[in-house]
Amino acid sequence: MPKHQPLSGFPELLPADRVVERAVVASLSDTFELHGFTNVETRAVEPVEVLLGKGETSKEVYLLERLQQEEGGAGTGLGLHFDLTVPFARYVLEHAGHLEFPFRRYQVQPAWRGERPQEGRYRQFTQADVDVVGKGELPFHHDVEVMRVMVEALDALPLPALSFQFNNRKLIQGFYQGLGVPDVVAAIRTVDKLDKLPADEVARLLVADAGATPEQAQRCLDLATIRTADTSFVARVRALGVADPLLDEGLAELEAVVAGCAAGERRHVTVEADLRIARGLDYYTGTVVEIFMAGYERLKSVGGGGRYDALASDGRTTYPGVGVSFGVSRSLVPLLADGVLAGSRPVPSAVLVALADEDSRHASDAVAASLRARRVPCEVAASAQKFGKQIRYAERRGIPYVWFPQADGTHQVKDIRSGEQVDADPATWTPPPADLRPQVVAVNLEETTP
Amino acid sequence: MPKHQPLSGFPELLPADRVVERAVVASLSDTFELHGFTNVETRAVEPVEVLLGKGETSKEVYLLERLQQEEGGAGTGLGLHFDLTVPFARYVLEHAGHLEFPFRRYQVQPAWRGERPQEGRYRQFTQADVDVVGKGELPFHHDVEVMRVMVEALDALPLPALSFQFNNRKLIQGFYQGLGVPDVVAAIRTVDKLDKLPADEVARLLVADAGATPEQAQRCLDLATIRTADTSFVARVRALGVADPLLDEGLAELEAVVAGCAAGERRHVTVEADLRIARGLDYYTGTVVEIFMAGYERLKSVGGGGRYDALASDGRTTYPGVGVSFGVSRSLVPLLADGVLAGSRPVPSAVLVALADEDSRHASDAVAASLRARRVPCEVAASAQKFGKQIRYAERRGIPYVWFPQADGTHQVKDIRSGEQVDADPATWTPPPADLRPQVVAVNLEETTP
Repeated sequence: MPKHQPLSGFPELLPADRVVERAVVASLSDTFELHGFTNVETRAVEPVEVLLGKGETSKEVYLLERLQQEEGGAGTGLGLHFDLTVPFARYVLEHAGHLEFPFRRYQVQPAWRGERPQEGRYRQFTQADVDVVGKGELPFHHDVEVMRVMVEALDALPLPALSFQFNNRKLIQGFYQGLGVPDVVAAIRTVDKLDKLPADEVARLLVADAGATPEQAQRCLDLATIRTADTSFVARVRALGVADPLLDEGLAELEAVVAGCAAGERRHVTVEADLRIARGLDYYTGTVVEIFMAGYERLKSVGGGGRYDALASDGRTTYPGVGVSFGVSRSLVPLLADGVLAGSRPVPSAVLVALADEDSRHASDAVAASLRARRVPCEVAASAQKFGKQIRYAERRGIPYVWFPQADGTHQVKDIRSGEQVDADPATWTPPPADLRPQVVAVNLEETTP
Repeated sequence: MPKHQPLSGFPELLPADRVVERAVVASLSDTFELHGFTNVETRAVEPVEVLLGKGETSKEVYLLERLQQEEGGAGTGLGLHFDLTVPFARYVLEHAGHLEFPFRRYQVQPAWRGERPQEGRYRQFTQADVDVVGKGELPFHHDVEVMRVMVEALDALPLPALSFQFNNRKLIQGFYQGLGVPDVVAAIRTVDKLDKLPADEVARLLVADAGATPEQAQRCLDLATIRTADTSFVARVRALGVADPLLDEGLAELEAVVAGCAAGERRHVTVEADLRIARGLDYYTGTVVEIFMAGYERLKSVGGGGRYDALASDGRTTYPGVGVSFGVSRSLVPLLADGVLAGSRPVPSAVLVALADEDSRHASDAVAASLRARRVPCEVAASAQKFGKQIRYAERRGIPYVWFPQADGTHQVKDIRSGEQVDADPATWTPPPADLRPQVVAVNLEETTP
């Protein structure tokens, strides 16, 4: 095998960085489970017709072919999933008879897209999705619940400040309808371009593509500029003087989501109503959200989601859902590259048990077994080098303690950071909790968490 | 989306079964980390030339093609990995400058093979691999270490009885050499067929293909029938009267591995020297092992591995390794299908907080928040149905407790299995530890573990 170059778009973590990713996934899973969400994993592949079910062909799907396929034989008809929503919808339909609804699940898995790689956009990337799905109907309060779960889950992570920016499709659609814009769908798509085009260009397109009058176009822009960190957006929308029953419904829903998610003490997550957020995807029907990370606005959103009244349907039964996704790779890979987050050491071992000579390996193994019985991760030195070399072996791995079995049967343990060496008993000695497992170190963030 | 049929060879777990898989992976990871093995995840894809690096084309590799690939454009040149050894070898070469050797890692990931599905053989399957890799050299004691780690890891799982059957390539090769068999490699391959062919047919092939005399062939078979649960195999091999330095080395290594792995109390793992084990793959150079599960001999081995003196090489440096792999899907999917293992419930929630009416959702949410703050997983009822219906909602999900906020501000909690209902305080009440999280229930096995 020759030397290998990294494969563009397929980031791979070194052990200390992998410590961070594992801690993040464990923390997310923990929050989701405390809220009663069950873990699901779907297979990596779906039939191509499922992947392209929504007429979607822009996702750069990877198809599977067998290397040993017969010349002219049929293909596999399978492709790698490009998100976790499409496979989850298929899972719900396939297993509906064995699931209880509303069904609350979370899923943390890689997905694949053959797109051009750039910072935050990878060909293989891990997402964490949390959704509630109903059978036939799904009460609105689940919108508040699932969004609040993600707020709590991300607030528990060692991350830069995050902003959840909420809107509601009914609010936008009701406003445009009440205003009398002829092509409401075109208007939503056009206003969604506000992050790429200047406002007056968007106004011009509203006239040209959505059939709006210049006055209507201006009021669409007025709506889109409303952004509040509390529920005061309601009064500001009302002040624009548009009346429509769907607008009322959307306002009430957005108010409930913002109030529900803003409640409680947060460390670094803030919540806003941002009436510019539309999300490009067509299947959202109510709540929509995008998540942004302070200092990493260049990544665009690091998560998002919303309400879809028809997540899945088998023709007879429709399954509405509400969910939100967090881009684990999209956020972590840049944070790790920038050194904002790091693992405190690349190995689980808290202790290196030194080896006086190869004949005493049994004695050192016995010390290690005793430490492990009390859940202290450790390893025995690979070879009986001079003790100075064994200490450097530990240093290079970030292992904080070296254990020395003594010739007289007693023991000493050295904290190689301070140099302090003390008598110790393998049956009782335990390192401080902070040294027991590798930690996530958050540089320039206000705190560190395990 | 129409109704979906399961995709043959891609088993997918329902939530209660997924509880078992997660518990198994968590337990394996815990043991590996206590022994200082660090977790690594590699990308799912490798360049095709890496996948086929050993001249291996029989693995039914899945190649990736882009759906939107230009007509006549170049393919991706990528395929899905078919095991975790090839990608790990590539990882070691690619990242060698950032790793410390000996490098101790474990890896739990899916792999893909386009083979014909059957029980225990899937097109997507999860493996758990643990390896130690050296740079240039790797002392033999790591063979003992890594095998013992897997023995301990599997002994901690709720599984039927497992047998680790060890052999050593040096022992076989040295024996055949000392015996004077002309084509030692052909002889190893032939004896490896003993599980498919009768002994006299193997003897015939040893003569025909390996150039052995009938007497040599008989002694090869005599060696292959030696199987001991301790180190008494050494005397039995010696009694066959063959002398060779490589045989001596192999005997000493196998003796150390069997003695090291057999030491200590085990629940359901046994260790044997089985001198018939060769493992088909060509790259093993010393220790070899196969793992069998009682009652599931039809699956063949559920794990295996060994020593490879050249796991990877960049032309200048060679990286020897020793490792062992456990087939998580191969063993669990049949055990789950047979009902030998099951999850105690499909949801994390230990408590359903009932809802008197929709207006009191805030009060029920507050109870849930209080329980979660003390790490009790719970959920609030989806709708304010009659309490009998809410209790059945919990029953269908296996949630053991239903919490009733009372109109007077007090609380009661009901164990819906016993029907017992008691006063409780959301700030202090906690379920028994066994009810806190879903458990693995091992039916007809002697014990259950969390």
